[in-house]
Amino acid sequence: MHQKTHKSNLSMTALFVPEIKSLIAGKNFSAVKLILSKIPSIDIAEGWKNFNEQERILIFKLLSIRLAIELFEALKFKEQAFLLNNLENAEVSQVLNEMAADERANLFRDLSPKVMKRLFGLMKKEEVDDVRELMTYEEGTAGATMTTDFLELKKDITARAAILKLQDGLSFDHDLDIGSNFVTDENHKLIGVVELQDLIKAPPDMLVKDIMQGTDFIKVNEFAPEEGVAQVFKHYDLKIAPVVEDTNKLVGIITVDDIVDIIEKEATEDFEKIAAVLPVDKPYMEAKFFNLVWKRSFWLVLLIIFESISAFVLKSNRQAINNMLALTFFVPIQIAMGGNAGTQSATIIIRSLALGDIKAKNFLRVVLRESLLGVCMGVPIALVGAVIVSFFENNWMLSLAVGVSMGITIVIATTVGASLPLLSRKFKLDPALMSGPMIATIVDIVGIIVYFNIAQLFLPLT
Amino acid sequence: MHQKTHKSNLSMTALFVPEIKSLIAGKNFSAVKLILSKIPSIDIAEGWKNFNEQERILIFKLLSIRLAIELFEALKFKEQAFLLNNLENAEVSQVLNEMAADERANLFRDLSPKVMKRLFGLMKKEEVDDVRELMTYEEGTAGATMTTDFLELKKDITARAAILKLQDGLSFDHDLDIGSNFVTDENHKLIGVVELQDLIKAPPDMLVKDIMQGTDFIKVNEFAPEEGVAQVFKHYDLKIAPVVEDTNKLVGIITVDDIVDIIEKEATEDFEKIAAVLPVDKPYMEAKFFNLVWKRSFWLVLLIIFESISAFVLKSNRQAINNMLALTFFVPIQIAMGGNAGTQSATIIIRSLALGDIKAKNFLRVVLRESLLGVCMGVPIALVGAVIVSFFENNWMLSLAVGVSMGITIVIATTVGASLPLLSRKFKLDPALMSGPMIATIVDIVGIIVYFNIAQLFLPLT
Repeated sequence: MHQKTHKSNLSMTALFVPEIKSLIAGKNFSAVKLILSKIPSIDIAEGWKNFNEQERILIFKLLSIRLAIELFEALKFKEQAFLLNNLENAEVSQVLNEMAADERANLFRDLSPKVMKRLFGLMKKEEVDDVRELMTYEEGTAGATMTTDFLELKKDITARAAILKLQDGLSFDHDLDIGSNFVTDENHKLIGVVELQDLIKAPPDMLVKDIMQGTDFIKVNEFAPEEGVAQVFKHYDLKIAPVVEDTNKLVGIITVDDIVDIIEKEATEDFEKIAAVLPVDKPYMEAKFFNLVWKRSFWLVLLIIFESISAFVLKSNRQAINNMLALTFFVPIQIAMGGNAGTQSATIIIRSLALGDIKAKNFLRVVLRESLLGVCMGVPIALVGAVIVSFFENNWMLSLAVGVSMGITIVIATTVGASLPLLSRKFKLDPALMSGPMIATIVDIVGIIVYFNIAQLFLPLT
Repeated sequence: MHQKTHKSNLSMTALFVPEIKSLIAGKNFSAVKLILSKIPSIDIAEGWKNFNEQERILIFKLLSIRLAIELFEALKFKEQAFLLNNLENAEVSQVLNEMAADERANLFRDLSPKVMKRLFGLMKKEEVDDVRELMTYEEGTAGATMTTDFLELKKDITARAAILKLQDGLSFDHDLDIGSNFVTDENHKLIGVVELQDLIKAPPDMLVKDIMQGTDFIKVNEFAPEEGVAQVFKHYDLKIAPVVEDTNKLVGIITVDDIVDIIEKEATEDFEKIAAVLPVDKPYMEAKFFNLVWKRSFWLVLLIIFESISAFVLKSNRQAINNMLALTFFVPIQIAMGGNAGTQSATIIIRSLALGDIKAKNFLRVVLRESLLGVCMGVPIALVGAVIVSFFENNWMLSLAVGVSMGITIVIATTVGASLPLLSRKFKLDPALMSGPMIATIVDIVGIIVYFNIAQLFLPLT
C-alpha cells in the first residue's frame, strides 16, 4: 500500500477486496485481521458493497473495537442498520456507546421509533440522554453539527491537574480531541480556551485560568445556522469552536473537518440552484433516477411556461416580421446574449454573497457597478452584433437596430442579474433561487420587447 | 465585545476603530495597547484601511510581537509593503524571521528582486534559504501551500524526550502546531506520525517508533496539485498531512485551514467558468472594474460570434418561415428550453466531477443516464410545449411539430451537456470550461436545426 496516496481510492479497494475475499474463503482469519489493521476505515467502507452479508459480519468482528467503530461511522445508513440487526447485543451496545456523538445522533435521526427504542435499551443512560438531546436540534444548525465528546476544564485547577484529567479522559475515549480544551466555571458557563501545548509548557502549579485565552470571538450559538458557523471558522481560521446556549453554557464543540463538509454541501446546493435544479441530497451515482427527473423537470416546465410570453411578444409583432422577415434571424443571438450576460452577473453576485464578499446592504453600489459594467460591455458587443448583421443583410438600419437593442439588453441583463439575487437576500430569501435560467428567461422576454421596439424606431415596418 | 460572534465583523470594526483613533489622539497609549490585545488580529487587519499611515505604524509598534506578526500575516500585500518600508530594520528583521513560512513565501513572491535582496539582508540565513526553497514551487502545488514550520521527531527517542523536544520547539516558535508530529529516520525519510496525546499517554520510556502510526495513506507529494491534496484531506477527514519528496523525504506540512481556502477557491473558479467568466482572483468589491469588463466580455463576444450560426440557420429556412410565420414565434421557447436542460446537465456533471462523485472513466454510464433522463423529461415537456402552441395557433400539426422537436432537443441537450465536461476531463482539460452558456449555444443551434427539420416533416411548408 506504499505511496498510493494519489491514486484513486477505487484502485485501492480493487487491491484489497479480492485479497480479503480469498483469505476469508481459505479461513485464514489472522491474515485478514492483519490486512484490515492497515487499511483506513474509510477505504474499507468504500469497498463494503463488494462483500456479501456473511463476509461483512465476519470482517466487522475481526476488526479491533476502535477500527470497528470508525468503520461503522463511515458506513451508509442501510449498511449500519444491517449490522445493528445482525450483530450480537453486546457488540451493538459497545458500538453505540462508543461511537462519536454527532455521528450517532445522525444515525438515530433515520431510525424508526421501534428500532430506536430497542437500541436505547442496549445503551448506557447518559448516552441515551445525549442522543435525545442532540436529536432535538434542527438539521443545519450548530447544535446538529456539534459533538458532545469533549472534556471541560475548571478554571481553578492547576496545569498538572488539567493534564491528568485529559489523560484520564483519553483512557475512556481514545478519539477525544484534547488539542484545544474549553474552560468553564461552576455553572458550566464558557470562560476560555486552553491549548494542550500551553498546558504542557506552563509551570505545573499555574492555574488554568491564568493560562487560558478568551473565547469571545470564537464561540457559536447552538441554534446558529451552519453557514454562519462556517463563516466564523473561515474568518478566524479556526480548527475548533465551542457551542454555547444563550446563557453561555457550553454544550458542545465543532471541529474544522465538519466545516469542510458544510462548505462543500453549501457550494453544491448553490451550483444546483444556479442551474435551476431542486436540491439533490445524494452523490450523482446514488441519486434515484426518477427523483432526478422530477427535480430537474420541475424548473424546466415552469420556465418553459414563463418563456412562452416570448411567443406572445413575437406574435404581437407579426406585422413587423411580415414586412421584414430578416428581423427574426437575429432573435436567437439577441436572447442568447442577454441570457449569457445575465447569468454571468447572477452567478458572480450569488457566489460573492455566499462568500461574504458583498452584503445585501451594498445593494445600490453593486447594482450600479453591474449596470456600468453592462454599459462598458454593451458598446463593443453592440458593434460586433451590428457587424454580424451586415454579413447577412445589406441593410445598415437593420444592423444599427440589432446593435443598439443588444447594447440596451446587456445593460438590462447585468442590472437584473445583479438585482434579483441581492433583493432575494434583502428579503431573507436564498439568493441562489434566482438561478441562471430564471434570470435568462426574464432577460429573454425583456430583450425581445426591446428588440422589436428599437426595430420599429429605426426601420419602416408599418 | 461580548457575544459578538454572529454579528458581521464590519460592525465590530466600526466599534473599535473610532475608539482607538480617539485614544491615539489623546496619546493614551496604554489604553490602546489594552484594547488591541483583545481584538483578534484578523479583525484589526479588516479595520486597517480606516487608520492613517502614522496610526498604522503606531498601532503596529504597540502590539506584542506575537500579535504584530499575526496582524502582518493577515494584511494585504500593499499594506505589508508599507510596513516593511516604514518600520525600523530591527523590527522588519523580527517580523520576517518569525512569520509563518508559507505566508512569508507568498509575500516574497510579489516583491521586486531589489526589495527582496534588501529584506534577505535583514534575515537569518536559514530563513532566507527557507523562502528561496518555498518560492521554487509553482503556485497551486502542495509545496506552495505547505509550511516548513514543523518539528521532526526521530523514531528512536523516548516519549519523554519527544515531549521535551516539542516543549523546546514551542519556546522558539509559539505558533508551532504540535498536535500531530511526524516521525523520520536518520535521512529525514517519513516513517510515521505520532499524536501529542499518545505521547502524553505513553509510558515515558516507550520509544516513539512503538507509539507512532503509519502514514502510507495521509502523505502528499510536494508537486501534487492542491485540488488533489484537498481531496485526500476530505476523503480521510485529515487535520494535517505531511508533504514529501519522491524519495519520501519530509519537506513540509499542510494543515486543514489551508484546505478550507483551497476548497472555496476551487468552487469559486468553477462558478466563474460555469457562468463563462474568465477567472477573477479578487473578491468582488476589490476586483478592478475594467479587468471585470474584459474577463466577462471575452466569452460574451466569442459566444455571440458562435451563436450567429443560428441566424444562418434561420435565413436558410427563409422560405418555410415565409409560408408559416407562426413557426418563428416558438423559436425562443425552443432554444431557451434546450439551453436550460443543457445547463442543468453540464452543471451537475461538472460539480460531481469536482467532488469526485463521478470519474471520466464512467463516461458511457453517465452519458447514457443523462440521455435517458432527457427522454423522461422530454415527454412531459413536449406535451407542455404542444399545449402552449395550441393557445397561440389553431394548428394541430404545428403543435405536434413544436412538441416533437422540443422532446428531441431535450435529449440532445442532456447528452451534450453531460458529454462535453466528461470529454474535457478525459482529455485532461478542465471540465468547467464547458460552461453553461457554451453548452447552451451549441444546443441552441442544434435545436433550431432540429426544429425546422421536424417542421418540414409535419407541415406543408414548400
